[in-house]
Amino acid sequence: MLDDGTFLKMALVQDVQAPPRFRIGMVVHSDMILLDLACPLTVFNLLQAEVSLLAASREPVTTDIGLPVRPTLTFGEAPSVFDVLFVPGGLKGSIAAMQDAAVLDFLASRGPQAGLVTSVCTGSLVLAAAGLLRGYQATSHWYVRDLLPLMGAVTRTDRVVQDRNRLTAGGATAGLDFGLAIVAQLAGADAARRIQLVLEYDPHPPFDAGVPARAGAALTQEVLNRRAPVIAAARQAAQNAARRLGL
Amino acid sequence: MLDDGTFLKMALVQDVQAPPRFRIGMVVHSDMILLDLACPLTVFNLLQAEVSLLAASREPVTTDIGLPVRPTLTFGEAPSVFDVLFVPGGLKGSIAAMQDAAVLDFLASRGPQAGLVTSVCTGSLVLAAAGLLRGYQATSHWYVRDLLPLMGAVTRTDRVVQDRNRLTAGGATAGLDFGLAIVAQLAGADAARRIQLVLEYDPHPPFDAGVPARAGAALTQEVLNRRAPVIAAARQAAQNAARRLGL
Repeated sequence: MLDDGTFLKMALVQDVQAPPRFRIGMVVHSDMILLDLACPLTVFNLLQAEVSLLAASREPVTTDIGLPVRPTLTFGEAPSVFDVLFVPGGLKGSIAAMQDAAVLDFLASRGPQAGLVTSVCTGSLVLAAAGLLRGYQATSHWYVRDLLPLMGAVTRTDRVVQDRNRLTAGGATAGLDFGLAIVAQLAGADAARRIQLVLEYDPHPPFDAGVPARAGAALTQEVLNRRAPVIAAARQAAQNAARRLGL
Repeated sequence: MLDDGTFLKMALVQDVQAPPRFRIGMVVHSDMILLDLACPLTVFNLLQAEVSLLAASREPVTTDIGLPVRPTLTFGEAPSVFDVLFVPGGLKGSIAAMQDAAVLDFLASRGPQAGLVTSVCTGSLVLAAAGLLRGYQATSHWYVRDLLPLMGAVTRTDRVVQDRNRLTAGGATAGLDFGLAIVAQLAGADAARRIQLVLEYDPHPPFDAGVPARAGAALTQEVLNRRAPVIAAARQAAQNAARRLGL
């Protein structure tokens, strides 16, 4: 039996303890688009979540804009359960990750226990290659989302797509909308609104060319032409993954 | 006089030379909001601009989300003319920069020759403290933009404000709209539209709370209360700068 002093001390400890922090695991890889990571990471940071940056080793990974990112935990050190498991994009890096056994094994081991299994941009190709989107609706960057069905997913074209506990988003900048959607689910709409206000997220793009339908055929074809070799490589990687998954 | 062979060689060299690259200087400082830098940097990178990250030394600076950034040139090594001179925000870091002679001297020396003098978020407080916004319309993060007139600027509340060659933007996420506006000026609307399409920048925030008027009084007051000490420190720094500027 506890005496009164012990009971009081326990009550005080409970009283001053912070509320439980959400545990978020973000896989990082070389040739990542930094915004894919930084947009949701900024949102999760304002939620005061406990964020880990995960890779096979703690060697810094490269990003599109030349700022390297150092993982904070190796796959081996990562906890088994995350509230949110996340994969960023960057097509060249995603193609490598789709064929990297360490990444795929890690996602396959942690995915089934994660609260939400998520991605921004071409990160959904990596989730799919790990078998985590079979039978799920999902999206990706507009120029590769047609590859998702090769790996058993059903393509949707919305900016943020949720199917049960899979939450995938479109290209790069979709990470802001995606991050706020996740905060709303974890901590409620007011927490998301407060973060939106702090980040002054009231977008006013000076042009209306963020999706192929409104950018027009000429500009869309120009982007597809410039990206043709890497998009072809992504298709090959998706076909290889499909074979591995027995699809 | 040149012989025909020399003339031909010169013509060929001109022919294979890349088009002139825009020279963009981005000041970095500790306690920076990484998105303030990364949003426009991602846009400038897709423009294939020559971007320098500038600070007093090459020691890495800290950012809000724990990813350090290493400057690529010191102030002393920086060229004298930039097409775009840029300062990111992050209020705590901006307050320090407003009182850092190395930063202020650098901005005062390069500002007058720069093509565009620009900022995102609270970076405009640093431009103003360096005397670069006297007599200009400008904006900043919503919770400190009322401090700009202390340093001789005229506050505007638009998301991106241009007055002659000064181009300032609102809080953090405004850097995407800002970056595209700059690309349009440097390289034309189609270059901006192509980058918007590549980044799939077709924002759909799940809530409408990005500015105080739409977030509502309660949420706005909550943010102001949490930020009160740092906002008070920013006011003090602005008053000190005003005295230095003889205002």
